[in-house]
Order: sequence, then C-alpha cells, then structure tokens
Amino acid sequence: MAQFLNARENIVTEAIDGLLGASNGRLVRLDGYPHIKVVVRADWDRGKVAIVSGGGSGHEPSHAGFVGKGMLTTAVCGDIFASPSVDAVLAGILAVTGDAGCLLVVKNYTGDRLNFGLAAERARALGKKVNIVIVADDIALPDIPQPRGIAGTLFVHKIAGAAAENGADLQAVTDIAKRVISGTRSIGMSLDTCTVPGSPREDRIPFGKAELGLGIHGEPGVEQVDFVGAKGALALVGAKLGEAMGSGPHVALLNNLGGTSSLEMAVLTHELAQSGLATRISHIVGPASMMTALDMRGFSLSVFPVSAGDLAALNASVQVTAWPGLAKFGLPQTVPMPAGIAPTAEAPSANAQLRKLILGICATLLTAAPDLNALDAKSGDGDTGSTLAGAARALRDQVDQLPLNDIPALYRSVSRVLSQTMGGSSGVLLAIFFAAAGEAAAGGAQLPEAMRAGLQRMQQIGGAQLGDRTMVDALAPALDELTLGLPAAAAAAREGANLTATMTQARSGRASYVTGGQLAGHIDPGAEAVARLFEAVANR
Amino acid sequence: MAQFLNARENIVTEAIDGLLGASNGRLVRLDGYPHIKVVVRADWDRGKVAIVSGGGSGHEPSHAGFVGKGMLTTAVCGDIFASPSVDAVLAGILAVTGDAGCLLVVKNYTGDRLNFGLAAERARALGKKVNIVIVADDIALPDIPQPRGIAGTLFVHKIAGAAAENGADLQAVTDIAKRVISGTRSIGMSLDTCTVPGSPREDRIPFGKAELGLGIHGEPGVEQVDFVGAKGALALVGAKLGEAMGSGPHVALLNNLGGTSSLEMAVLTHELAQSGLATRISHIVGPASMMTALDMRGFSLSVFPVSAGDLAALNASVQVTAWPGLAKFGLPQTVPMPAGIAPTAEAPSANAQLRKLILGICATLLTAAPDLNALDAKSGDGDTGSTLAGAARALRDQVDQLPLNDIPALYRSVSRVLSQTMGGSSGVLLAIFFAAAGEAAAGGAQLPEAMRAGLQRMQQIGGAQLGDRTMVDALAPALDELTLGLPAAAAAAREGANLTATMTQARSGRASYVTGGQLAGHIDPGAEAVARLFEAVANR
Repeated sequence: MAQFLNARENIVTEAIDGLLGASNGRLVRLDGYPHIKVVVRADWDRGKVAIVSGGGSGHEPSHAGFVGKGMLTTAVCGDIFASPSVDAVLAGILAVTGDAGCLLVVKNYTGDRLNFGLAAERARALGKKVNIVIVADDIALPDIPQPRGIAGTLFVHKIAGAAAENGADLQAVTDIAKRVISGTRSIGMSLDTCTVPGSPREDRIPFGKAELGLGIHGEPGVEQVDFVGAKGALALVGAKLGEAMGSGPHVALLNNLGGTSSLEMAVLTHELAQSGLATRISHIVGPASMMTALDMRGFSLSVFPVSAGDLAALNASVQVTAWPGLAKFGLPQTVPMPAGIAPTAEAPSANAQLRKLILGICATLLTAAPDLNALDAKSGDGDTGSTLAGAARALRDQVDQLPLNDIPALYRSVSRVLSQTMGGSSGVLLAIFFAAAGEAAAGGAQLPEAMRAGLQRMQQIGGAQLGDRTMVDALAPALDELTLGLPAAAAAAREGANLTATMTQARSGRASYVTGGQLAGHIDPGAEAVARLFEAVANR
Repeated sequence: MAQFLNARENIVTEAIDGLLGASNGRLVRLDGYPHIKVVVRADWDRGKVAIVSGGGSGHEPSHAGFVGKGMLTTAVCGDIFASPSVDAVLAGILAVTGDAGCLLVVKNYTGDRLNFGLAAERARALGKKVNIVIVADDIALPDIPQPRGIAGTLFVHKIAGAAAENGADLQAVTDIAKRVISGTRSIGMSLDTCTVPGSPREDRIPFGKAELGLGIHGEPGVEQVDFVGAKGALALVGAKLGEAMGSGPHVALLNNLGGTSSLEMAVLTHELAQSGLATRISHIVGPASMMTALDMRGFSLSVFPVSAGDLAALNASVQVTAWPGLAKFGLPQTVPMPAGIAPTAEAPSANAQLRKLILGICATLLTAAPDLNALDAKSGDGDTGSTLAGAARALRDQVDQLPLNDIPALYRSVSRVLSQTMGGSSGVLLAIFFAAAGEAAAGGAQLPEAMRAGLQRMQQIGGAQLGDRTMVDALAPALDELTLGLPAAAAAAREGANLTATMTQARSGRASYVTGGQLAGHIDPGAEAVARLFEAVANR
C-alpha cells in the first residue's frame, strides 16, 4: 500500500468525514452512509436556488470542498471515479430544494448524465423545480459531440453559485450557468498516470513524454507528446486553447491534477505569463488543486471570457475550503534593492599599540596552524588551522586599512574582513562575534563587556553551550576572568581548552557527528586556538 | 525530465515570478535577481514590526506564499534546499524594516542560523532593530539539542504576524514568537522520497514501509516503520506527539509534504479524529500543503496548545495565498435523510383497454428480442433485445398493480418499473422518458405532447440528436406524425428506423465506438424496437 488510505470500500466515506471534521462546522452530511454520500451546507435555509453538483470521487477537493456559502449547496459523491446512484442524487436534491428550486451542474459523463437526469425526474415528480446543465469544457477532442466536463466546471460553480447566493431565480441561474458553459474551454496535460486505490498503477507514459488532452479519471490522453519542460508544456497547452477560445480578455484557471508540486505549479504559472496566451489572460484562479485525478502529476488550464459581471461573481466572497480566489494576472513587479547591502569599509586610522597587538595575534594563528589542523583531523576535516590562518593573513595584509583608532568601527571591520575571507560556519560565527562586540562598544561597553556581548550573540546563533566541546569552552571562562587581567584570562582559557579533551560527546558543530571514543584526549581545535591567542597576548 | 520545470538554475526565480504574477498585485520582489530572491508585501509601509522569514526553496508555498497582511512581511528565498546568502537576508531586512524593527523567524538549520544571524548583525550595524527567533519543533530525535524547524513554524508566522499587524512592539512580538516556539511540536511521515531537480530520485523507502520523523529536505527519517494504512500512520504519529506535547487542548496543523493527494489528506484528517490524540485536539489548520519537501508523498502533523488569545491570532484575517485558516476540529455532523427517496407505488386502478395495449406492447418486445439482439451484435454487445425483454416481462407481471386509469401516474409507474428492472443506459433513458411524459401529462398534455416532452428530456440527458443512429431516429418522426394517427406514426417510425442502416457513424451510445463500415446496412436495434412497437400498436 503506497497511499495514506485504509480499506478501499471506506475511502470516500472516510475522506468526507475528514473534510467535515475540519470544516469548522460549515458542512454536514446526510445520514445515509455508506450508499448515500451527500455533503450539504450546514447553514442552508432553502430560501434560495440550490446548486447541486457531484460525480465520482477521486477529484478532491471537488466537489465537497466547494460546498458552502457562495458556491455549491450540495455535493453528491460517488465511489472513486464512479457516478453516484440515482437515489444519492435524489437525496441530495431533496435535502436542499425549497420553493426556489435547484440547479444540477453535471459534468458530461454518461453515468453522471443519466443518474442526475433520472434523479431530476423523480424530484420533479415530487413537486420540485429542478433544472440541469451539462458542462463539456474539454477541448482535447475538438470534433466529438460530447466533450468531457473537467476543471472548467469550477467557473460554473462559482458564477452560478454567486448568482444563487444573490437571490437570482432558477431560470436566471440556469441561463447564467449555460452562458458560462458555452464560453469555457479546458485542456489537461500529465507526466504520469494516477494511482487508483486497489488497482496497479498503469505505467503508460514513458520518461520524456507527456500526455496531452487527458481527462480526470486516469484515462489516456489524446496524444503523447515530447516533454521538454514547463515552457514547452505551456506553449502547447496555450496553443490548443488559443485556437478554441474566443476573443477578448479571459480569466484562466490553473488546476493541479493532484500530484504536481507547488514549486512546479508556480513555474507553470510563470510560463503561462510567458506563453502566447499571456496577452489574452487578464485574471487567474489558482494555481491550486481544484479538480484532481487522485495523485496525477499533471495540470489543466481552463479559460473563460471575462465581463464585469462575471468578474464580480468570481470575486464574490465564499465560505468554502477549496476556492483559491480570483487575482489579476500580470508580470511580477519589482522594487529597487535597498541601499546598504554592500559593506562599506570604515575610514582607516592609526593606533600603533593596537596595530602591534593585531599583528601579534595574526602571527600566533599562523604559527599554530599545523597544530590546529592536526587536532581538527581527530574530529573533523583537519582544516581549522588553515581556515584561521587564511583569516589571519587577510587581517595582517589589511591592517593599515583598518580604523585602528575607533574601537567600535574596528570590531565591525574585523567582522567584515572575517566574513569576506574566512569560509565555513566558524567564519560566520566569528563575524557575528565581532559585529555584536562592535555594536556593544558603540553603546559604550568596554572590552570585556563588548566581547561578552559578542559571545552571547555567537552562542545564540551557533547554539553552542558551555561543555559542548567548541571554542566557547575556552572563550567563555577567559572573558569571565578578563576584568582580573590578561594572565588570569589566559589561564582560564587554557583550563577551559584542556577540559574539552575530556568531553567525549560534542553537541554542536561538525564534531557532533563523531562518536565519543574518537574524541577522548584531544583538545577541541577552536578552544585550543582561543587559548593560544590569550596566552600570546598575556605574554607580550 | 519528469517535472514541470525548466533549467535548474532558474527554477526558483521562475517560481517566484509565477507566484507574484498570480498574487493580485499583493506581492513584489526586490530587483536583485538572480542572487537576491526576496518577496515583499506590496502594501508595506514600515510602520509596524516586520516579520522576515525564509530559507531554502523547495518548500512551497513556504515561505513566499505566506507573505501578506497578517503574516510575513518578507520571504528571503534560497536556492532549492539551500540557505539564502547573508546579502539576500540583509536585503530582505533593509527593504522592510522601519523604526519599529524586525523579527527574523529562522528554522533551525545551521546555514539559516548563520546567514540570518550575520545579516542581523549587519542590519544592526546600520541602525536597525533586529531580533531573531529559532524554530525547532521537530520531535523526531527527542534527545538532540538542535531539533529541526519544520511545519510548526507556520504557527509562529501566523501568531507573531497577527501581533505585528495589531501594532505590538518588537519585544512583544519576539516574546510571543518565543512562547509559540516553546509550545510547538511536529513530526513527519512519508511513503517516498522527493524529486530534487537535477538529481536522480533516491529509491530509499521500500513498498510496505514508511519513514517516520523525517525533515523537509528529503533526508532520511529517523526510522523506517511498517506501513499498514492511514489509520496506523496517524496512530504512530499521534503517539509520538502525544508523548511530547503538553496537557490541555491543542490546535493541530496537518501539512501535506507535497505529493500526497487531497483524497489521502482528507482520510488522514479523518484518522486524526479517530486517533488517541483526538480528544486533545480542539482546532485544526489544514489539511493543506503549507511547508513541503518538493513532491514528497508524506505529511507532517504539528500541535500547539491553545489559548483564547492565540486562537484569535490564528483566526485573524490574512491576505496571503497559502494560509488555509483555522477550524474547530470535530466529528462529522449528520442530518437526517430526506423523505421521498424510496419510490412509492401509485394506487392500482383498472382500465381494460390500456391493460390490453400494455400487454400487447410487452408481447411485441418479447417476440422481437432475438432479432434485436442480432442487430445489436453488429455494433454492441448483443443484448438490446434481452434488456427490453426483461423490462417487458416486469411490466407484464406487474400490470395489475399499475394505476391504469390515471394517465400521469401510469407514466410515472412505468418509469419506476423500468428504472428498477431494466439495466444499462437505455433503462435510465426510458425511465427519464416516461417520467418526463408523466410530468407533462400531469400538466394537462395529451399523449403526443406528453411523449414529445419525454423525448426532449431524454435527448437532453442522453445527448442523442436525430441522425445519431439511436432509437431517437425512429421515435422522433413517429411522434411528429402521431397527431395524424397511429398508421402514419408507425410508417414514420419504420422509415426512420430503416434510415439508421445508412448511418455509418454513430455519434451517441455504445455504437459510437464502432467504425462506420461495420454499421452499414444494419438498422439500429433501438430504432428497430421503436418501429416494431408502433407497427404493432397500429395494427392492433
């Protein structure tokens, strides 16, 4: 079983119950399980024309997902890809039809036509006013007299639904539905078949091919075409629709057939805007899963000519779970990039003492590189020393461009140089350290306090805690002792670094992927670097 | 290429442009393609706290689909499954951050933490107030110090977004986000891996297995478990969450990881209501695709303890494309079945003349059965005669239960008997014919007129036109002549039936699947039946 389903015979009733349970109480069903699977608006008062639709299941969210204020009154659900029975349709009609009557919106499949048609007769015999419209929007086979009804049906549900909600009478709602049907054109394309529960998946579409003009039941498309990407797919679909649609601006409905990713649907939307059809599309519904074929990796595109009245109907508010709304369709709009992205170097200034300190630190790191690499080889990829040496070389070479006599600016400059020259996570973390220290210094903090601010921010972002076997284990105790003088800080850094040799489970950084036994007895290279720096500065 | 995409390097920019084009002008992007992929609210005025999120792409609709009034201000998009650069995040911050400041909502991945973290420092150095929160809701590995951030992040976006929209200050929004993060727990399950564009699909999960506790980048789950259907899946996921969540009612967020069908998601929703977790879930968000792993056939479930304030925030209106809204979660509610579904037999009455007529018609059909079967064998499955004979036998046997002396009721009764005893499309169509005739008769129509009403309705539902090689080709001309008397009608029926032998392309019914050559010279069996009936009645 490769689907999140249970026993085949219960799939539809379970899915309906799932939908109802998450409907915020807006949907109820008739108490007719398992044979009668009818979803109804909970707030329906029979005062207006009811819109009843439905058909086989497997097309979710159609049809029950469109039941609610402003769209369908009732969805009559059959088993998967099977028309509901006459009794089920009749129950759906009788449950909601008052004096205003009821319009059945039926997709053009023989089973649906017959069962909805006979149910309509039986409802009429019981005194109900019932009209039927048949949706046949699929242009896959242009010459057949009975085109299929596919996702363009949503236009009918929405526009007729809005009219009914506004209190139009049955004849007016019927005429509107017929007008929408006459203007709607759709076609689908897929890269794969769908998985019908309980049946083996048909392996019909070879890699590199797509099927064009396919329905919503997994039946083969009209033709297999070469598939050359999203652009080609939309060009082909757009060309077919372009020949079949009328003039003037249209609204497009871009429907996910079930298994296409949101990323792909967004790319297809982009390609619609690039296609030859683009100038004829003024509005769009979707992309969204509206009328699916189970998990089919495909899409369909429907078009309908716009008028002010129909746009208002498509825009009218609804209380349904699945209607994605109407949007103006257009090219993406840009706004200018903000200023300040490129880091600006601070004005250089001189400070002989700090210059000497920085060069000394750089020399220490360059000398320590082989030892640090060797330590890192115990737990990582052996490049901690080289990475720090690269940063040290860059700082050394740029030392006379630094604002040496402006402490907050100096911190920020070191941050900038590190972020530009030192790779890996540690480069970013040290850049964060010095940036936060600079921010604190600009606020008046002295060296220990500024560095503690840097440490705190680095820990927040990096996530390392004391005892996690990182440079924090040397840096944190050193900074704690710094107000007592450099020798005390250096001693604390060394003690902290040595302690990492006893930490057999790294909990942060790359060493966290290494088991304890391999780490025992080896100092963490980041902590060792910190200890050596403090020792070098203290022993100047 | 088995996905609706174009060149790999353009996927994300194309997808963003697609989203923007269908956003009704509500979204814009920074003019920084291809490196800076930042989506911004078009209506943003910097007067409130900005909420900035983002991360790698491939999780659509996250994050750009949640940009808009009431949720995110900005989404910073990386390449597929790759963190955006520091420059991109900084651009996103600077584009929207005014005096009120900005909150970065970051999912707990090293790359995101570092790049958002350093960007925050650089923004602070430019004078911006920036806070960061890290979401770590995944309970797959309960003991690791750095849990991943997955779909529970949506709770943070929504609740912090509502607070920011309401004008809360940066510290308040940050505190709210941290509180939401501390209460959120999530876990995912999948039946298959995902298709990373440009990479071969990993075939890691065998049929019959599911992966539990997996992230949103196609990385392996914590364990492979036996998959025994939707119920077992929810039981397992629910048990894991149940151990990790707090007491009291929770809101659930049911997320489609990308490739799961709507039908399956609805069944999973049902199973959530059946699971051990059900009594602890008072509200639900979804099911919907909210934070996906491309086309992964999986789902994740997140829970968060409810309070009145947080429910109001989750319920607050938004202008985003992807937020599915909050619903009370409950068991499906039913309403009683309407009366009138079971067809009621009309009260019998006597009419010797009509009784004789009906029995004669039945006898004619029984006699004609072998001939009609033979004709049908030319184009169908050879059962037209048998099907009609079955109906004739039923009518004959029930003739004394019919309301023979009440014409409208008699039509309706014949309709009922046919729909109950005659299989196939033709049974339904004839039931529709007699029901509609009965409706017309009840309105005062005499026989020819009532029958024409039946024909019209049958044609509307069945779709057959004159010349389509069906029973209509005999019935329509016969009814046209009926006012001139039965002999004229019978002659017209015969002429029409004979004409079907020259119709080499059936356009309706099952014979439409048969090519012309096979049909030439053979009368349509339905038309032949009609002709024989009229001839028999005329020759009484």
